[in-house]
Amino acid sequence: MTSANTLQARTPDEAYEFAAPFRAPQGSPIRELFKYVGRPGMISFAGGYPSKDLFDRDGLGRAIDAAYRSDPIACLQYGDTAGAPALRRSLARLMGARGVECDSDDIVVTTGSQQGFDLLVRTLIAPGDTALVEEPAYPAAIQALRLAGANIVTVRTDSDGIDVDALAATLDAWSEPGRPKLLYTVPTFANPTGATLPRARREALVRLAVRHRIVLVEDDPYGELRFAGTPVPPILALADACPGGRDWVVYFGSLSKIVAPGLRIGWALAPAPIARRMIVAKQTSDLCTSPLSQEAARHYLDSGSLESHLRTIAGAYRSRCGALLKALTHFAPADIEFCAPQGGMFVWARLTGGRDAGDVLKRAIERNVMFVPGTAFFVRDADASSLRLSFAAPSEAEAFEGARRLASALSGN
Amino acid sequence: MTSANTLQARTPDEAYEFAAPFRAPQGSPIRELFKYVGRPGMISFAGGYPSKDLFDRDGLGRAIDAAYRSDPIACLQYGDTAGAPALRRSLARLMGARGVECDSDDIVVTTGSQQGFDLLVRTLIAPGDTALVEEPAYPAAIQALRLAGANIVTVRTDSDGIDVDALAATLDAWSEPGRPKLLYTVPTFANPTGATLPRARREALVRLAVRHRIVLVEDDPYGELRFAGTPVPPILALADACPGGRDWVVYFGSLSKIVAPGLRIGWALAPAPIARRMIVAKQTSDLCTSPLSQEAARHYLDSGSLESHLRTIAGAYRSRCGALLKALTHFAPADIEFCAPQGGMFVWARLTGGRDAGDVLKRAIERNVMFVPGTAFFVRDADASSLRLSFAAPSEAEAFEGARRLASALSGN
Repeated sequence: MTSANTLQARTPDEAYEFAAPFRAPQGSPIRELFKYVGRPGMISFAGGYPSKDLFDRDGLGRAIDAAYRSDPIACLQYGDTAGAPALRRSLARLMGARGVECDSDDIVVTTGSQQGFDLLVRTLIAPGDTALVEEPAYPAAIQALRLAGANIVTVRTDSDGIDVDALAATLDAWSEPGRPKLLYTVPTFANPTGATLPRARREALVRLAVRHRIVLVEDDPYGELRFAGTPVPPILALADACPGGRDWVVYFGSLSKIVAPGLRIGWALAPAPIARRMIVAKQTSDLCTSPLSQEAARHYLDSGSLESHLRTIAGAYRSRCGALLKALTHFAPADIEFCAPQGGMFVWARLTGGRDAGDVLKRAIERNVMFVPGTAFFVRDADASSLRLSFAAPSEAEAFEGARRLASALSGN
Repeated sequence: MTSANTLQARTPDEAYEFAAPFRAPQGSPIRELFKYVGRPGMISFAGGYPSKDLFDRDGLGRAIDAAYRSDPIACLQYGDTAGAPALRRSLARLMGARGVECDSDDIVVTTGSQQGFDLLVRTLIAPGDTALVEEPAYPAAIQALRLAGANIVTVRTDSDGIDVDALAATLDAWSEPGRPKLLYTVPTFANPTGATLPRARREALVRLAVRHRIVLVEDDPYGELRFAGTPVPPILALADACPGGRDWVVYFGSLSKIVAPGLRIGWALAPAPIARRMIVAKQTSDLCTSPLSQEAARHYLDSGSLESHLRTIAGAYRSRCGALLKALTHFAPADIEFCAPQGGMFVWARLTGGRDAGDVLKRAIERNVMFVPGTAFFVRDADASSLRLSFAAPSEAEAFEGARRLASALSGN
């Protein structure tokens, strides 16, 4: 007997006629690695998660409590699509401390900065439109553009981030139909490379954006996680010095890496015509970001705890990064190269002997250490010899031991 | 002297070359009315918000507190894109109580059910694809389809919801290129009409969906707010009886109207190929719904308070709706007709004399009462003589007084 369930199981995927980017959807290759993370004794350099042992649990607990006790209705009712006015004021002050003058009305609160970029892509990119992306790049940004049907053109980077001269040459020689509409970059402690774009390159990028009328997307989740070197202002802070500059920079901030991702609080600072449309897109996306989360975030920001908390995280990340690099330097064979980042969560490494990082990963997992092969961060022709090491999650001792195991996997001992 | 700021102000909207649906974006016409809501003495039948005075503040406060105290890391760290496993289990039990057998793995937690529909639209609708929508309909569903570039075809309704015979005739005679990919409906206590689709029509809709391979979207935020009449099972609960039925129904649930919208917790129950793609789209949209909100929602659901809370809300809405209808019946002129809903938050009314509800609204606002003109709920040829009255927010006495004022606006006294 054939049951209804059996019949149902036969309805093929094609029957639904999905929109083109969803016909053969690919999940995140990084998430595929998650099954190994929980293995006893595993030391993971794979995750892009902030360290859970550094969360300000008590401070956030007090913030959640104060938010709910002081105004339960604000936490429970629908809120403004653009965000709660009080949180927008707190975020405008935070932007002021980052060197960006803005009015709280300019801030759009988003459900993580992931939503911010997605909303921007929706307003700008029609299928076939061109978007520029630094390469290697944050995979979820690439994915947002793919799902929007964008023609993704990659921009070369070196250890200082985007190669602005190469970009300028590309843009000046642009002959394809359809000019690029946006350029996506994480200019400070980039994911995955850890690179930071120097000030002169930032200024050149703004001039290029104005000249070619390209929306320059500055994704800045890590900028306040500096533990070495000299601060560089956000691109947006430098944009005012270039006539028209402010009109072509969209900035995304996030509390995920500096407070807690579970709040899902990000924000966008965009030129008014763009911000207005992002708010329309947000009405459709989720009406508003969780007011409970927004109220909790606002109370936390207004408590004044963030500054000392940032010192705590940055200090811990400095130690962890240092231990990782020290062990790699000491134990790894000569055919691996890497740069020491000045902040953030990532070290980018390359196997100069041409070995495949995916093969090394298999040997690494046998030794109870993990990382993400660099292929995950490329749009097309992936550099199979690259790898990303996140030092956020392991303790300092684990980072050292993990790097020692990685060195062993690399050496074949 | 021309400052940089003046120059910036001159960059025209067109310079950004927005994607087509965003070139001249329209905000929600309902939100335009908000400026009057706060006026002293105003009684508003305009909002689609649940009543803030009915929130279970203490119960939710305990749930938030328990969630954070028992597992702060789960509240603060990134969560699974499909939702927290424990919440998915609680929601699967809730669906069981609604007559739908499902596994918790079938549930996708969304940032409100608004996000659920948006994710579905993204996976299915390419620009130019056809989508069917009951008319009048929930404006944010229309907007999601508009922003996706859908060709929106409306489906006629009467006081029992979708006219299934008319729909069957339309589909059988379909000759346009591109078959409809989905049909959007709120079958129980619809927004804006308050109508409930009878069981036989639900069964017929499922058969039509299977025959024509149309994804039947059952948006069900109000189904548990019944205060009169006999319960009708969700369409999804009836789908199993039709071979292949379950493959063509996507169900959206929400805690917004039965617990609190500020949590931003909705969920989707979709056939596996669709659910898988919605999860891919959600990775891009916001990575995951606020884990803090999810944990709080789960603790609230597991506290067992929902059942008695639903009785409280439904009882209050019964009284408010009754007072509204009583006053309208008693005081309003003969040229207004309306149906008494059996639950939910809305009464739909029509001015049979051909008067324009927008004109009546102006006179109503002068008398400190508000509603939403029905034009907001149509795709194209709006019925200007219709109006939506939400009885959720005013107290029973206010509902009576508001309806008396509305009758006065209608009578011109």
